[in-house]
Order: sequence, then C-alpha cells, then structure tokens
Amino acid sequence: MDLKSKIRTVEDFPKEGISFKDITTLLQDPEAFKYTIDALVELADQYDYDVIIGPEARGFIFSAPMAFSAQKPLVLVRKPGKLPYETVRHEYELEYGTDALEIHKDAIKPGDKVLIVDDLLATGGTTLAVAELVEKLGAQVSSILFLIELTFLDGREKLGAYPVETLIKY
Amino acid sequence: MDLKSKIRTVEDFPKEGISFKDITTLLQDPEAFKYTIDALVELADQYDYDVIIGPEARGFIFSAPMAFSAQKPLVLVRKPGKLPYETVRHEYELEYGTDALEIHKDAIKPGDKVLIVDDLLATGGTTLAVAELVEKLGAQVSSILFLIELTFLDGREKLGAYPVETLIKY
Repeated sequence: MDLKSKIRTVEDFPKEGISFKDITTLLQDPEAFKYTIDALVELADQYDYDVIIGPEARGFIFSAPMAFSAQKPLVLVRKPGKLPYETVRHEYELEYGTDALEIHKDAIKPGDKVLIVDDLLATGGTTLAVAELVEKLGAQVSSILFLIELTFLDGREKLGAYPVETLIKY
Repeated sequence: MDLKSKIRTVEDFPKEGISFKDITTLLQDPEAFKYTIDALVELADQYDYDVIIGPEARGFIFSAPMAFSAQKPLVLVRKPGKLPYETVRHEYELEYGTDALEIHKDAIKPGDKVLIVDDLLATGGTTLAVAELVEKLGAQVSSILFLIELTFLDGREKLGAYPVETLIKY
C-alpha cells in the first residue's frame, strides 16, 4: 500500500517554513491504519522484545494497537506530573531550555528488552531521551520504530546506538 | 475477567483526598488489555456508528486499538494548537476558568454517527464538550464508551442526552 498517499502535508505548521506530516488522514482510513499497524508489528518481529513503550501523545496511537495485536505489555512514557504512581524522571536538552519525561518505576525491570514506538523521527532528541530513560531503569532498547522518518533531519544518526526502523521516509 | 483487579488505585493523586484509578497496570497485562478492547468493541457493536472519536491523550490508548479491531475510522480530538489542519474549536467551562478542544473540520461529516471513547467518566465535563464539538460539525453522537465510571461523581447525568456505556464502575 502507498502509505505516503495517506499522509497529508500541511505547510507552515507549527511555524512558517515547516511542512508538517499530518497522520490524521491515515487514521481516518481503516484499511491504511490496519496495514500500518500490521507492518509495524512485522518490523518489530525481527527483534526480541518484552515490552512496547509508547511516548505521549501520538506514540499512544500506534503503540496501543501494536500491543493489542502483538500481545505485549504496553508501557507509557509521559510528560512530568501525568503518571500517578512513583516515577523515574529524565531531563533532556532542547534547542532552547530543557524538558523532562517520566516512566513508572515499576513499569519495566532490569534486563527487559524494550521496543520504543512513535509516529515521527525528526531530530530524534525526544526519542533519545526515552531510550536513556529505559536504560536508567536497567532495561535494554531492543529497537526503535517510527511510522515516518524525516531523513534530512538526521535523527537516525542521533539514535545511532540503537536499531531504528521506519515505514515511510521523506 | 475481573478487570478491577487490574486497575491500581493511587491515593492522593493528583491532589490530596483523590483516589486515582491508574490504568497503566492494566495496559501492562496483555490479556487484560485484549479483553478490555474486545469488550469495548462488543459494547460498541450495540450501536450504529461510522467513526470512533478518541480525545487526547488517554482516549487514544483505547480508541486506537478499537478502530484497528473494528475497522472504523479514528478521529482525534485534541487540545488547541495540536492539530495541524483547519480546525473547529469548542470552548467549555471548567470549575475554574475555561478550556478548549479542537477537531479537524473535515474529520467528520454532517450526518455521521460518532462513537466517543475515553478512559474515565468522572464529572463528564470534558466528554460533554467533545459531544458538543461533534454536534457543531452536524454529526450525531451514537454513544459514549468509557473503561471506568466513577459513579459518585454523577457524570452519567451530565451526559444524559446520550447513551453511555462503561466497563468498570466504582
């Protein structure tokens, strides 16, 4: 299936000069969405993994159906203050300032093999922070899957320590 | 399956005196998560619907696997500024101040029958706003499904104009 034809490009969002890849048109096409989840699960099958991690918020949209389909535990990574139980936090640098992510401290165990799933690989900064959070808990990043990769932003290089798989490349 | 046993109660979150229902323990149990999605799809099957609406962010976790499983279009409702294309916005009152939600203006059509899916029915305020947003676009709320209902908050009354189904009641 030509998944690119299911993605809408919105110019100048969130700011001028950026061509935003809008996944909502794909989500509204049940065949395309099923094809996408099945293809992501197939990509994941190349790796040995115990747990799927979905980062807030668009990561939930792909990680949750994958966890449902592949029958794997789903673990959420969220912005600070959203997870109710005891968390481990990881701060990371942005272009301007810092941001932070949290995971429940009992969500993954040392030695777990973790699959990280998100919608978009841009610069890779946030995903690298997710990977570092996983490692902080003693677990291991088995691989990282994205629906879309913006190759010109070299995010794959930033994530060079991990296997990265993407379905759609721009 | 006893789904209540899969939900963790976290006391005093997000503030003192509140017993927060933590769904992450359910998500980490693949059998329980599959059972939940299957049960929600079965509840939905009682109604005639064209589209599933998932409100940000925890709504994505249940609406996306349902859309995948039931082969229905998935439409996102998000906080302002998150959706890239032209949106319709609906402002609603909170206990203190107002909040707003957005939907892509071409995401649903007049006459569409819409199923709204979210994790938790508390006071029902945000869900009522989602329903009003749907109606603003000329579509019709077929029914509203929640994983969890906090019955003592009477949210079902606030949503009295719509059929409401919930899997777990406290």
